[in-house]
Amino acid sequence: MTADQSHVTKSLAQFVAGSQWDAISPEVRCEGVRGLLNFVGCALGGARDEAMDIAVTVLTPFFGPPQAIVIGRGERPDALNAAFLNAVSGNVLEYDDTHLGTVMHPAAPVASGLFALEELRPVSGRELLHAFIVGVETSCRVGLAVMPTHYRRGWHITATCGIFGAAAACARLIGLDVRRTAWALGHAATQSASLVESLGSMSKSLGVGNAAKNGLAAALLAEGGFSGPDKPIEGRYGFAAVTSDSADLAHITDGIGERWEVLNNAYKPYPCGVVLFPVIDACLELRARHAPGPEAIDRVVVRGHPLMRERTDRPNVENARGAKVSLQHSVAAAFLFGAAGLAQYEDDCIADAAVRALRARVVFEEDPSAPVESATVTVHLADGTKHSEHIRHGRGTPGRPMSDAELDTKVRELAAYGAPFVDAAGLIAAMRGIQDEADPTRLMRLTVPT
Amino acid sequence: MTADQSHVTKSLAQFVAGSQWDAISPEVRCEGVRGLLNFVGCALGGARDEAMDIAVTVLTPFFGPPQAIVIGRGERPDALNAAFLNAVSGNVLEYDDTHLGTVMHPAAPVASGLFALEELRPVSGRELLHAFIVGVETSCRVGLAVMPTHYRRGWHITATCGIFGAAAACARLIGLDVRRTAWALGHAATQSASLVESLGSMSKSLGVGNAAKNGLAAALLAEGGFSGPDKPIEGRYGFAAVTSDSADLAHITDGIGERWEVLNNAYKPYPCGVVLFPVIDACLELRARHAPGPEAIDRVVVRGHPLMRERTDRPNVENARGAKVSLQHSVAAAFLFGAAGLAQYEDDCIADAAVRALRARVVFEEDPSAPVESATVTVHLADGTKHSEHIRHGRGTPGRPMSDAELDTKVRELAAYGAPFVDAAGLIAAMRGIQDEADPTRLMRLTVPT
Repeated sequence: MTADQSHVTKSLAQFVAGSQWDAISPEVRCEGVRGLLNFVGCALGGARDEAMDIAVTVLTPFFGPPQAIVIGRGERPDALNAAFLNAVSGNVLEYDDTHLGTVMHPAAPVASGLFALEELRPVSGRELLHAFIVGVETSCRVGLAVMPTHYRRGWHITATCGIFGAAAACARLIGLDVRRTAWALGHAATQSASLVESLGSMSKSLGVGNAAKNGLAAALLAEGGFSGPDKPIEGRYGFAAVTSDSADLAHITDGIGERWEVLNNAYKPYPCGVVLFPVIDACLELRARHAPGPEAIDRVVVRGHPLMRERTDRPNVENARGAKVSLQHSVAAAFLFGAAGLAQYEDDCIADAAVRALRARVVFEEDPSAPVESATVTVHLADGTKHSEHIRHGRGTPGRPMSDAELDTKVRELAAYGAPFVDAAGLIAAMRGIQDEADPTRLMRLTVPT
Repeated sequence: MTADQSHVTKSLAQFVAGSQWDAISPEVRCEGVRGLLNFVGCALGGARDEAMDIAVTVLTPFFGPPQAIVIGRGERPDALNAAFLNAVSGNVLEYDDTHLGTVMHPAAPVASGLFALEELRPVSGRELLHAFIVGVETSCRVGLAVMPTHYRRGWHITATCGIFGAAAACARLIGLDVRRTAWALGHAATQSASLVESLGSMSKSLGVGNAAKNGLAAALLAEGGFSGPDKPIEGRYGFAAVTSDSADLAHITDGIGERWEVLNNAYKPYPCGVVLFPVIDACLELRARHAPGPEAIDRVVVRGHPLMRERTDRPNVENARGAKVSLQHSVAAAFLFGAAGLAQYEDDCIADAAVRALRARVVFEEDPSAPVESATVTVHLADGTKHSEHIRHGRGTPGRPMSDAELDTKVRELAAYGAPFVDAAGLIAAMRGIQDEADPTRLMRLTVPT
């Protein structure tokens, strides 16, 4: 497909509606399965997060008929509310997937819309997987087209571009034609929202939840004949021009259906902001090698891309949401505990006196020439010696991807954390077989208490 | 209250939570009543719009318990869906109110959230009216702070700023404290959405509907303890910086609680874009005076502020949504039919051959020095003569406001158009007495079939 930037919405809709399963390589399919598995694991882990509990309590009086499962919980709301809640739990631990080209977490909005929809409209596991791959492709390509100024301006891209993927995936699963798929993309564009300012509070989850819910609604409304504009992405007042100062729409159309962005999607090894991964890798390596006690550390100097400061310079944090996007907290916890797992981002660890003291001794140095997936950490000891570690590719990035075994371990840990009643091994095996699953609702049922 | 631009969200929340009824003048209260009356009239008129019918059909399977009335219809969905639908119908005819400083239509998002909420949490008519005035104030002041570049960039301000008013009004009606009101404003900020590109299609209604629904949800979530960021409006990645290139936060705080923006809110005399009012006034005046037949008209030259071209330069329109923001259609219809009412924006008139022919002979000339509420129309006849009419203030603008009698007539016409079963005189009288109404749900019941 060649780029036609004056009709990019139509080109994208043609891809979404016309994608053929046979044209998708086994490698792409496999990464789609890994993406869905990682999503379900994250949603299990986040199922009992405080933000989830409050959202469920507040929204329950408005729930429609019991249509869809909330992963890892007992409630059964209407499909739109289920899409919202599953996207919240899938993202709330900051442990989900990451598309490095955009630093977006594509799975939660796309998968949540799909799992809610497939309970309304029976489809095969293969159809769901296909729609997921198409949806992730849509989110990532729209994101690439508006980056880097989209995020720099203050748009929380996981939500703002995730809604396009959710709408595309649901349009695909419903089987909308090109015209109505384009309407669905238009309804996504005009509902796209979420500010970077919301990160660090529960408010962040509204963006991700709404991306799933409103993306699903976009497809359903388009199916019903609710019309959209012709050029919601490329128009003078369309999504690209309005939310980016550097829009390049060729990213949406060039090679679409040939190159697949899901291959550039990685799964987090640590439940925190992705730019912190190489930093944590380096800290864990330095601790393992030199084992400096906290009292021996004079300061820790982190050198990295300016984006790291932009997103994670939070020396004082008071809760998990802040800690997960805090360079200082992640460094301190990794040095003190030799780990950066879910426990290191809980209140006890955040309030720990030694962690707080070490957070204050973390210094950041900008290096605009450093690749964003790299970091150099130098620990300066009180006796004047220093040790450095350079990480070129953080673990859980495309340069050093999580293996299948690592991913399974992660999902087991997440299930144990948020939904200990789940048979994690059985769920993992079932998810890995989704391509041949006749009824994906069966997979959802494996995530809830019997 | 003095301006503190580094804590503008907190200042705004203090106003919302602390506003005192006794500090609101009779003039402001009266304009609040007129705003609510005009809203209910518009929602009645829009109740059977195609966009409403489709939205109701698509959303009905997801409705929660019957909690709130849909104005002018028989359905009774949960309060969140009712808020969405009432905001859609209140705005869909392009006949609602207009705050001239921002060219925003503040009532639909604010009133829809409130009328849905008051069915869940019984309040007095006075409390509802007070919350409405506070909500309109919030929407307009946030809008003033981000204009003019907010709209110029492509943000559909009725929705993007309307959600702040809806959240503030609902927070006020629930009785949230300052901290939780600020959270509600934060949830509004991060859910703010709607693109100018969506105007002219049904997609536009999603923004207005979501502003009401998500504004109400913002307040309910804040009540439940769902936390928001400290500086959602004024932060580095907050609403103002992200959506405006000219933010001036003093517009939010200066004189708040002393000067009231609802006094700058006007009610449309024609169901179309507000910048077209002086143009239509001039066309109707020229037709009444000179009665040129369509064949005698060589061309019509409209001279006005560049914003007129920006928003209404649509020589070819195919449906009511496009026609209502079309300079060319409005001019042609006014000259041919001597009116610009609901009938002039229906399909028959839009497809009329004579209207189409005259649309093609409408020429626009920019005059950057012309005030936005003015226009000069010159009709050039085939015989070489020409006639001009200059309108300084369009009817239905603060310089030439609608009288109470004109407003009542408008509401009666709207009711007859969209909900002919309604006792319009009884409803108007009841709405005008809302300040002393013990149970505002009674007013809603007057809008639906018995």
